Amino acid sequence: MVVLKGAEVSARIREEVQGLLGELEGRIPQLAIVRIGENPEDLSYERGAVKKMENFGLRVKCCGFPADIQEEEFLRQFRSINEDPDIDGILLLRPLPPQISSRAVEAEMVPEKDLDGISPINIAKVFAGDETGFAPCTPEAVVEVLKQNQIPITGKRVVIVGRSMVVGKPLSMLMLKENATVTVCHTRTRNLKEACREGEILVAAAGRAKMLNQEYVGKEAVVIDVGINVDDSGKLCGDVDFADIQDRAAMATPVPGGVGAVTTAVLAKHLVQAALMRKRGQE
Amino acid sequence: MVVLKGAEVSARIREEVQGLLGELEGRIPQLAIVRIGENPEDLSYERGAVKKMENFGLRVKCCGFPADIQEEEFLRQFRSINEDPDIDGILLLRPLPPQISSRAVEAEMVPEKDLDGISPINIAKVFAGDETGFAPCTPEAVVEVLKQNQIPITGKRVVIVGRSMVVGKPLSMLMLKENATVTVCHTRTRNLKEACREGEILVAAAGRAKMLNQEYVGKEAVVIDVGINVDDSGKLCGDVDFADIQDRAAMATPVPGGVGAVTTAVLAKHLVQAALMRKRGQE
Repeated sequence: MVVLKGAEVSARIREEVQGLLGELEGRIPQLAIVRIGENPEDLSYERGAVKKMENFGLRVKCCGFPADIQEEEFLRQFRSINEDPDIDGILLLRPLPPQISSRAVEAEMVPEKDLDGISPINIAKVFAGDETGFAPCTPEAVVEVLKQNQIPITGKRVVIVGRSMVVGKPLSMLMLKENATVTVCHTRTRNLKEACREGEILVAAAGRAKMLNQEYVGKEAVVIDVGINVDDSGKLCGDVDFADIQDRAAMATPVPGGVGAVTTAVLAKHLVQAALMRKRGQE
Repeated sequence: MVVLKGAEVSARIREEVQGLLGELEGRIPQLAIVRIGENPEDLSYERGAVKKMENFGLRVKCCGFPADIQEEEFLRQFRSINEDPDIDGILLLRPLPPQISSRAVEAEMVPEKDLDGISPINIAKVFAGDETGFAPCTPEAVVEVLKQNQIPITGKRVVIVGRSMVVGKPLSMLMLKENATVTVCHTRTRNLKEACREGEILVAAAGRAKMLNQEYVGKEAVVIDVGINVDDSGKLCGDVDFADIQDRAAMATPVPGGVGAVTTAVLAKHLVQAALMRKRGQE
């Protein structure tokens, strides 16, 4: 089984980003990471994103807010980040605490700075296959892993396990745009093993540690693992039982070291694209 | 094979609408149908919608514009319909002529009056499974046909042929919300027959006359035909070869007399819901 390493895909996206940066004539785009509270997963994602931005030669500003901040105050602060001309793009770490309405923040987010595709305008564009908007970074990273590894998608049976707004649903739209025949499975799917085995490309985005073993994998399938979980021994693992599928799958992404590294690279690309769009709009 | 008649589903939706009307305390909601040019398909759809509104006891105003109206002038007129307090909901007949940008009109449409779910806010809500918005009427009609005929959807394999913004894509989201395992097929799907036969529920929204014969239909499948085409002899027909599947499918909707009649009933329901939402907002 070929291991599809995220680092290699990320390196290629880095080259692309360097090319785009040249068009900015010296101005270095800046990302704002907006975080409420000190959730360990958020902090870990933030560290990864900061490191990636630095590695890509981009600027990043971390805007942390107390876990108990009230909605009105948060929206006021968020608005000033939104309007800051020196901020080119925003990553809002989620889920938000219960006192803050996600919908209120999504509606507030300027679509042009919404690098992770959470505003209604960007969601509608993903739905329409309109590339002038930003898709959420994780599903776009899945497509990047396939494309950068020259894995054809057109006409392929793609099976996605998971129907979240963050991965499963937008990925189904991105895969349709790539001309795949797309099936979305979830907790209510009957005969899940059988349905998964139909996938020439199988994407695991269920959020359950090592849930998919070789019984779920079609012969010679390409397996993309979006899961980030902690196993019984406290180690990071994906939704796929990586060791178990070795003799079954043709290719697979590991966790860690797979899609995650590509997600932050896509975020960096979106940041530079946002800065470029703004520059072109001002010219 | 059981024939699933649209008229019966429409009659049940009519009862529901009468119940909702009671809450409006005598005020009769009004639909505006906005049409540019004299496209025969638009005129036919308009006639059907007018008849349905009258049959449901609702008011309807037809706003026709010349085929060569310029965008600026059209948007000005559209805005006044949008803002008219005596108009509760709008149906915009599409496609629009080339000089009018669809996106400009979609962005202009007040989401609360957007009965056919074309504004970004409503698209994003369909995507999120948020029922406070309006889904496009045709895919919602497909779900209504199944529900009103007590056909279970949860856990079922639903195969949709067609990936348009009007039917295929939003229907895939509505079906996921109903807990179906959803596959979307299209022109680039390989082994389309085989993929279609996997569907316990098969929805034809491809736009090609009688394209799906019995070879595409799984044994005892429920077949919902969204197509409206004209066959070689000039007669209205669907995407399904209705005569050919008689001994293969368990149930199917005819064309005409199937989903189309339900689509305008859903439009009527949306109209009354829009009027109710507005009333509650003003109270």
